[in-house]
Amino acid sequence: MSLSLAAAQTITTAALAEARARKAKPLAVIVLDAGGHPVAFAREDGASLFRHDIARAKAMGALGMGDDTRVLAERAKGNAAFFQSVSVVVGGNIAFSPGGVLIREAGTIIGAVGISGDTGECDELCAFAGLKAAGLDPENSK
Amino acid sequence: MSLSLAAAQTITTAALAEARARKAKPLAVIVLDAGGHPVAFAREDGASLFRHDIARAKAMGALGMGDDTRVLAERAKGNAAFFQSVSVVVGGNIAFSPGGVLIREAGTIIGAVGISGDTGECDELCAFAGLKAAGLDPENSK
Amino acid sequence: MSLSLAAAQTITTAALAEARARKAKPLAVIVLDAGGHPVAFAREDGASLFRHDIARAKAMGALGMGDDTRVLAERAKGNAAFFQSVSVVVGGNIAFSPGGVLIREAGTIIGAVGISGDTGECDELCAFAGLKAAGLDPENSK
Amino acid sequence: MSLSLAAAQTITTAALAEARARKAKPLAVIVLDAGGHPVAFAREDGASLFRHDIARAKAMGALGMGDDTRVLAERAKGNAAFFQSVSVVVGGNIAFSPGGVLIREAGTIIGAVGISGDTGECDELCAFAGLKAAGLDPENSK
Repeated sequence: MSLSLAAAQTITTAALAEARARKAKPLAVIVLDAGGHPVAFAREDGASLFRHDIARAKAMGALGMGDDTRVLAERAKGNAAFFQSVSVVVGGNIAFSPGGVLIREAGTIIGAVGISGDTGECDELCAFAGLKAAGLDPENSK
Repeated sequence: MSLSLAAAQTITTAALAEARARKAKPLAVIVLDAGGHPVAFAREDGASLFRHDIARAKAMGALGMGDDTRVLAERAKGNAAFFQSVSVVVGGNIAFSPGGVLIREAGTIIGAVGISGDTGECDELCAFAGLKAAGLDPENSK
Repeated sequence: MSLSLAAAQTITTAALAEARARKAKPLAVIVLDAGGHPVAFAREDGASLFRHDIARAKAMGALGMGDDTRVLAERAKGNAAFFQSVSVVVGGNIAFSPGGVLIREAGTIIGAVGISGDTGECDELCAFAGLKAAGLDPENSK
Repeated sequence: MSLSLAAAQTITTAALAEARARKAKPLAVIVLDAGGHPVAFAREDGASLFRHDIARAKAMGALGMGDDTRVLAERAKGNAAFFQSVSVVVGGNIAFSPGGVLIREAGTIIGAVGISGDTGECDELCAFAGLKAAGLDPENSK
């Protein structure tokens, strides 16, 4: 089980289609493989310059800690000192906001998607739409 | 004049189509805007892990020095001490091999494409095919 | 007095045996020598990707500050600005959560063990089990 | 197909047994998974301080470029400017000496072993012995 470029592009395209349907701000979407290496990336016209790095930090943070960034953001609120130190330990490869979502196939983590540009909640919904389009719906794959 | 996501995706798709026609090794393709920020990226199945970073370093190196990496690689042969120091000065954002190609529109640099995975020569030909498909042929745009 | 590979492997093996007895989440365990250099490391199947770096930051942080990370985590709560700056000063070589434990022989620090994967409390108990198995019980060696 | 901790420890133990049989200098041995993340590590008593980092750079370099470091070291001789720039691009995660060996299962890369401490040739022979002990002999797995 691994994450193909074709699946990663399906996720990216569907996530951005969801963003346009929601009239979201311009987004950046990245898909990483299970080892945290980039497979596909797209930044919409008008997205600001940090969106790539934040999207990647969301996806990598989810992979690195083994949980979606929605969960990590909640945990960080209750244990700020630890999670701030983790942020430095991993060289900034983590961002505490929803929108970093693990990709599972038959229960195994095969990658992660990270989205940045609108609210964390909107970013995450676009990620879910991307996964669903690729048949990797997080609700069905755990 | 700026580089749209649509144009960057056309470049990426056409470059990878050329790679398959040439039976190239699995490639990574990145498109950066005029500020050196990623717009689109794709890594083919089976491409090794450094291909993203090398492709990006080719594209960024071209933008950073104002010449395609084919030219920079030639210059580096004749002035190793300087170009090695540049490599460190810019934190590794340059790679001395063909495949980093400036994107011009009406003579203005609007971005760069970087490709890594096969020989530098093959990588560069795939980059040219990508630019041509987007109507940004380097031969016609200087 | 120094920390041998044999002792480091005994610590690692016993710590992971304790983890399995406790049904802990998959862990990463690292043992550093008195100079902070790695002697032994093991990451259990299924442990997430940052566990190596966090385990190492716990062990290095304990060595660097001269106290177990349980103590450092408490101090960080009461002096956030200082400990956040330390985190950056030392390039992320510290993590504020239990599980980084100094290794002493006859009162002299000869290394540290760092564990990450479950709660800090569980990680620390596994570290204690490792030290005890190697005859380096922190309770008896101070 | 993935690389288990059990397999990684078998590789490490057998590589060090080969080293002792050969009366090699003290070695460091690391095993990385397919994404370049550490699974197991051991540094023999008396090994000098950079051995961990060099072993890791050999293993990561092999994974990153998709070839054993024996091959990369040969290529680097003929194209110094490019490979020196790659060294900086990837933040030092590559070392041009034999002893970084890809681990394949049924033709798929599942990780890499890196060894440092004696000559590159000796380091590589110890890596081969490790892979053979784990039933992952590079000769049989391509």
